[in-house]
Amino acid sequence: MKPNVAAAKAALSHLDIEDKDSAIKAKSRDFFWYSPVLKDRLDHVVADFVVSPRSEAEVIEVLKVCYAHDVPVTTRGAGTGNYGQAMPLAGGCVMHLQHMNAVKEIHPGRVIVEPGCLIKDLDAACKADSDQEVRMFSSTWATASIGGFIAGGSGGVGSCTWGSLRDLGNIIRLRVVTMEEEPRVLNFRGEELARVSHAYGTNGIITELEIPLAPAYDWVEMFVAFDDFMGAASFAEELANQDGILIKLASVFEAPIAHDYFQRVKPHVTEGQSVVGLMVAPHSMDGFETFLKRRPQAGLIYRSDASTWERTPGAVFEYGWNHTTLRALKVDPSITYLQVRYGFPGHLGLVEKIRDMLSPEVLQHLEVLRENGKVMFAGLSLVKFTTEERLDEIVRLHEEAGAMIFNPHRYTLEEGGRQTVDDRQLRFKKEADPKGLLNPGKMIAWDDPDWSYDRMYAYPKLQSAG
Amino acid sequence: MKPNVAAAKAALSHLDIEDKDSAIKAKSRDFFWYSPVLKDRLDHVVADFVVSPRSEAEVIEVLKVCYAHDVPVTTRGAGTGNYGQAMPLAGGCVMHLQHMNAVKEIHPGRVIVEPGCLIKDLDAACKADSDQEVRMFSSTWATASIGGFIAGGSGGVGSCTWGSLRDLGNIIRLRVVTMEEEPRVLNFRGEELARVSHAYGTNGIITELEIPLAPAYDWVEMFVAFDDFMGAASFAEELANQDGILIKLASVFEAPIAHDYFQRVKPHVTEGQSVVGLMVAPHSMDGFETFLKRRPQAGLIYRSDASTWERTPGAVFEYGWNHTTLRALKVDPSITYLQVRYGFPGHLGLVEKIRDMLSPEVLQHLEVLRENGKVMFAGLSLVKFTTEERLDEIVRLHEEAGAMIFNPHRYTLEEGGRQTVDDRQLRFKKEADPKGLLNPGKMIAWDDPDWSYDRMYAYPKLQSAG
Repeated sequence: MKPNVAAAKAALSHLDIEDKDSAIKAKSRDFFWYSPVLKDRLDHVVADFVVSPRSEAEVIEVLKVCYAHDVPVTTRGAGTGNYGQAMPLAGGCVMHLQHMNAVKEIHPGRVIVEPGCLIKDLDAACKADSDQEVRMFSSTWATASIGGFIAGGSGGVGSCTWGSLRDLGNIIRLRVVTMEEEPRVLNFRGEELARVSHAYGTNGIITELEIPLAPAYDWVEMFVAFDDFMGAASFAEELANQDGILIKLASVFEAPIAHDYFQRVKPHVTEGQSVVGLMVAPHSMDGFETFLKRRPQAGLIYRSDASTWERTPGAVFEYGWNHTTLRALKVDPSITYLQVRYGFPGHLGLVEKIRDMLSPEVLQHLEVLRENGKVMFAGLSLVKFTTEERLDEIVRLHEEAGAMIFNPHRYTLEEGGRQTVDDRQLRFKKEADPKGLLNPGKMIAWDDPDWSYDRMYAYPKLQSAG
Repeated sequence: MKPNVAAAKAALSHLDIEDKDSAIKAKSRDFFWYSPVLKDRLDHVVADFVVSPRSEAEVIEVLKVCYAHDVPVTTRGAGTGNYGQAMPLAGGCVMHLQHMNAVKEIHPGRVIVEPGCLIKDLDAACKADSDQEVRMFSSTWATASIGGFIAGGSGGVGSCTWGSLRDLGNIIRLRVVTMEEEPRVLNFRGEELARVSHAYGTNGIITELEIPLAPAYDWVEMFVAFDDFMGAASFAEELANQDGILIKLASVFEAPIAHDYFQRVKPHVTEGQSVVGLMVAPHSMDGFETFLKRRPQAGLIYRSDASTWERTPGAVFEYGWNHTTLRALKVDPSITYLQVRYGFPGHLGLVEKIRDMLSPEVLQHLEVLRENGKVMFAGLSLVKFTTEERLDEIVRLHEEAGAMIFNPHRYTLEEGGRQTVDDRQLRFKKEADPKGLLNPGKMIAWDDPDWSYDRMYAYPKLQSAG
């Protein structure tokens, strides 16, 4: 079972293989470095080679050859994930899906697409075809691939209306290749989708996706400023509860996030102001303006369709979700973040409680999200990092207060998720990846079924930093 | 102030005036007769003449002439309302807007249309133009006008997703003509919309509407049968809370409504089965089927895209909202109904409580509705009518249990609504209809500001039945 990398690489030499060391290193990395913990553990990780298949047939060939030579395969899209999803912990092959980017069919309400297509390009194709766009996307829309979003993401811009990727109806079908002596091609729908969506490519490789679409509107993007943080949070929550006003984004930034980290917004807010970022459908703007006028504490400082700012801030969604962390990091490298769930109906109270306890060490950044039909919050809180111990303590304080944490300072599916084994994913891995070669080290249940979760999991076969 | 009907009619004789008595009688009636109480009070009501203007200029002329001659004007669309909205209580002129049916402009997410356009025709135009349709409509879609729906309705098919007409964003703009010596033309947006929407034409005549659109999909229409009523109600509620599954309708019919009153459904259900009627977007059907399989107690008996029934049931929405009452009435003329609000979060419990108390005298018919972002129920309960006293007692029992009643056995705005004066509507009537000639008898606050609501209001100038 010792990998024979050289033999695999030779057998795949007729494909698009990256040879340059610097390029291999670049393509072996994702955005894990948002986390100082993952940066410490994974910064040295590198693949032995990178292959970019041009078709499903070539994907099958890569998987078959690597299976034969016991070479691990870590699949990636654009590598914009933050949980180390695409980091090849045990080296071997990184399979880059950049060439598999075709938009195959567009229908009313749905699209069939290859995984390597950038979300931005997918939206452009759907808009050109029939004024449609994807229901939800990561804030890395411009650079992320749709396959990476489905395999490694959970929700994003649009989740305030459509919920999360795991909710029924937000993925229609996934076509998946297994890593066996003779790889199989399977089409998953319904309950079967949970086997491979958000599984980091640990148990099959997605070669085609069918996902729902929503109408593409010329969303009006806005910033609204508040002197009071809880006023900002309530405003976003109440707006999302307006059934007749169609929104795509409602982000809440505690002061002084906008002032300190959003350079183009800074001239327009004070240090003490909390800010809400919004995307509202143009035909909902009359309703929104009425909603706004009822709340004199809310100050509209920017709207994309009538901007008075000297320098455009760019897309407002590129301030939300994990772009908030990115912008903060660029100004203050000691910033990191946590991913928090503030569930309905106690969400507002829980946010206030945690803020009272931890601000300004932890600054609240909320994203409005629907869960089981109710408006609640996802938190991507900004954390001033000091030590790993303190970070763990902050996690514990959240959990004790009643907020669930999806820990972005862990590289396993379980620790970054609900800290429980997903039996459906594990069972399918046993069937689809019998040698355990797909994205090794990411599924604790596979490597160490008795793991106690009492400390951070350390994959025993992680490349040594030496 | 005595109306001079003859003079007004003569002055308008160059317009489209209906002369035949039988036609005048027919055009003086709406669907008030769903209520035995209103049937008793209003069956004899008839206009002196009916005029059908062809343009806003002609509307202005009608209003100006009738103002000069003190003639009441009751405006109607298709006359499908059930609260006697379009009944000319004091006679005079019925203004029929059938000719004003132009679809003027269609844009992404919104349409500008004249009030007399049938909703069915409006949808056809929007679909042909850009695969769009109105967000919500009454079950009388095929025959009702969009202006009548906005002026006399509150919500309908689509409200499970978009909420009610009164919610911000569900009406963008209304163009309104006043009834003064010199009628004015006003455009209302935002807060001003509440003056004239759902005002029965008592304080201004809508001559143009701008309303939001949603994408038009080939909705899959279904019936799902349950042995247990509360199972059916929970199923509908849980489905509507699935953020990723797009629905347009979720109606719940207590047994034996479907068996006894839905003739084409009858062969497929037992007397003891409660039924849920649904409209689901085609691209949400995979998600819906997964949802369905998780609930083995739910039996899918009909789907429009794969029907095995010998005779098609027609549109499923024509079984919901007030078509349920219509179908029941056709089988059993002693049936009438109530309009009930079961508010979140106690909605399911409240339904069960009232059913325990009143079934089968009152059979539960629920429509899933969103209110303030939450899924709850509107009830259009079927009531076996015996006496007015018992009907009033049933209303009282609902109210005591905590359910709000919008009493469809009353012809005034206040009694059919929240039983309070709408100051915005009253204030605007003082300004826009100083002589009180628009749809007289429908606004208690105008006629009798000190009315105590201790009994049914009886408009003093109601035509005598003699």
